[in-house]
Amino acid sequence: MPINLTEPTELLPVPGIRLAAVEAGIRYKSRRDLVLMEACADASVAAVFTRNAFCAAPVIVAREHLAVGGARYLLINSGNANAGTGERGLADARASCAHVAEVMGCRAEQVLPFSTGVIGELLPVPRIREALPGLAAGLGADRWMGAMRAIMTTDTVGKGISRRITLSRGTVTLTGIAKGSGMIRPDMATMLAFLASDVAMSGAELQEMLGSAVKGSFNCITVDGDTSTNDACVLVATGASGVRPAGDEDRRRFAAALQAVCDYLAQAIVRDGEGATKFITLEVSGARTPAEARQVADAVAHSPLVKTALFASDPNWGRILAAVGRAGVPDLDVSRVRMEIGDVLIVEGGGRAARYTEEAGKRVMAQSEIPIHIHLGRGSAEARVYTCDFSFDYVRINAEYRS
Amino acid sequence: MPINLTEPTELLPVPGIRLAAVEAGIRYKSRRDLVLMEACADASVAAVFTRNAFCAAPVIVAREHLAVGGARYLLINSGNANAGTGERGLADARASCAHVAEVMGCRAEQVLPFSTGVIGELLPVPRIREALPGLAAGLGADRWMGAMRAIMTTDTVGKGISRRITLSRGTVTLTGIAKGSGMIRPDMATMLAFLASDVAMSGAELQEMLGSAVKGSFNCITVDGDTSTNDACVLVATGASGVRPAGDEDRRRFAAALQAVCDYLAQAIVRDGEGATKFITLEVSGARTPAEARQVADAVAHSPLVKTALFASDPNWGRILAAVGRAGVPDLDVSRVRMEIGDVLIVEGGGRAARYTEEAGKRVMAQSEIPIHIHLGRGSAEARVYTCDFSFDYVRINAEYRS
Repeated sequence: MPINLTEPTELLPVPGIRLAAVEAGIRYKSRRDLVLMEACADASVAAVFTRNAFCAAPVIVAREHLAVGGARYLLINSGNANAGTGERGLADARASCAHVAEVMGCRAEQVLPFSTGVIGELLPVPRIREALPGLAAGLGADRWMGAMRAIMTTDTVGKGISRRITLSRGTVTLTGIAKGSGMIRPDMATMLAFLASDVAMSGAELQEMLGSAVKGSFNCITVDGDTSTNDACVLVATGASGVRPAGDEDRRRFAAALQAVCDYLAQAIVRDGEGATKFITLEVSGARTPAEARQVADAVAHSPLVKTALFASDPNWGRILAAVGRAGVPDLDVSRVRMEIGDVLIVEGGGRAARYTEEAGKRVMAQSEIPIHIHLGRGSAEARVYTCDFSFDYVRINAEYRS
Repeated sequence: MPINLTEPTELLPVPGIRLAAVEAGIRYKSRRDLVLMEACADASVAAVFTRNAFCAAPVIVAREHLAVGGARYLLINSGNANAGTGERGLADARASCAHVAEVMGCRAEQVLPFSTGVIGELLPVPRIREALPGLAAGLGADRWMGAMRAIMTTDTVGKGISRRITLSRGTVTLTGIAKGSGMIRPDMATMLAFLASDVAMSGAELQEMLGSAVKGSFNCITVDGDTSTNDACVLVATGASGVRPAGDEDRRRFAAALQAVCDYLAQAIVRDGEGATKFITLEVSGARTPAEARQVADAVAHSPLVKTALFASDPNWGRILAAVGRAGVPDLDVSRVRMEIGDVLIVEGGGRAARYTEEAGKRVMAQSEIPIHIHLGRGSAEARVYTCDFSFDYVRINAEYRS
């Protein structure tokens, strides 16, 4: 059960964008698993991808095609990641793009491929090819909900959000969808998020804005510490509204909305983390550098002992301190470390706070949303990471995923 | 159930060492939880401790007392780690040593305290004090088995081993015991291992030999990536045999036996890892530096996705590749990466090996001992790490540990 997260009831169409989703039978039965997203001519496209060295074939091909410019189509399949598939995987990703180009009457370089699902199996390209005419025929502006559901793998709910943004020359729409609930520790991007707006913006501007929004959102979540091979986050600006940001205030407004949408989607991924029962906001402050703060946050967020204690609603703060202590911070003066869980001061002076009671700890740990604040007392840098607990269901899901 | 590990049926006494174990009622009911180990006068004592910045009070006090020299007594309790207990914890550890000194007629600095168990609770010093006369009265040379069992926490079997080592001037005995099955990622030492020999050796020689043995054994295991606050490994040389190593060949022989004993105990900790069902030997070769090889080994060994796939006996090698890819190796050429699980070549050229079959993968993954070899193809450095899988029982044990 996702934590305080429900599927959106509607997603706003974005002028200049059409989508379709069909059942291609790639891996799952009786569900849609193939999406085509079309942007109007002259749309700007920005994207960030995984930094996993074993990045998937579609990531390599999408990067190549983006560099050529003029992208018009996003082809997205679930059920098969086309990762760890070597030269054959690259050829399959390129062939899929060529088939789309043939059906839609564009160049193959105008198609960006995306895949998510099991690693190491060959992509069934013939099934994709057979499904393409149906996809092309089904394209419509109001198909975001179907696309959102078709890109799910172990997700238990679809994740999507829409915003209207009022700029000085008019109003634009921003809609985004994302999937992912395991192998989540994004590094430059996350497991498949697609955003589009009818704002008018150059590719370079868009790329800079997306990079900044991803840094504070998708790159600050972790479910299990495992960076995926297929992470990708794409932002399309169709320009169909004719509204171009006029000056810094407009750019700030659009960037803020984009950040809010990315924050929502990133946190939605954690709320639907595999087996998750608790949503944890982990803040580390008082560090010497942001990297040091993040290092401590990551050590805590990835500790299986911390995560199983969170699952048990057990205020076993000693495990959190142990993770802070092993995070590799040079010359950490533990007597300056302070920790609060929610509104309860738990640690000060490197040990249990004088007024802490086990009852107060239990009360705050019983909540479904748990904010943890660790103050290192050695500087003014900080970091924030969103994560979840580690439950029986995480093991069940990941022990059964391929069976 | 530990993996191919049974409790020793006997442990050899070490001349110059006496031990006792009693029920002090520190946390557990109806089991022995307090050990006193006495070394004869003039014994040499070497030790390595955790590098966790939040090291426990007994670690701080034991380091101080070791620096003074002349250590004669090791006081070890299970059930309470005396960690995260601030100034009060330090005072409690010192008081425990003072009580031993009073009963045994030595200086408090000649007592080294060790604790293992739950973090963040105060040590019940009065119970320890009450138990001391009984401990003193019970000291005997043949009490290693009782001591081995008394230091257990979530361990399911006691871990111990004895060796006789023939040196040119006579034969010496080496006996060691260890505990630990969770919060295991030793960094300079592991969760409580005590070794003793009647060999005659200086403290400096002993310390060098222990440091080297620990590096290749306890520092190469990981259960959950969480370095403990209480890790300690102690080696006592009583000299009671009168046998001093004569020359390099003798030193080499003793060092080899010490390495073998440390290897056995370190691997025993992983075989009895919390919830473990598989014992994994992870070899990374072809790296540019040993640190790089270790970095890749750690990324794989700590991946929850890899560990749950191992639990499921699922040859989901894509998860292993993904962990290698996110390990942070600069400019990794994935086309040079090769991977074998047991005798099955699974990956070559960065993708599935041509002759690999799912059946072969399933066969090798069904074994209880799984060797994984990852060759990076970019140098000649290597690393080896021992780890275990991640099961329902790991979550159960760590969600229930304090309840």
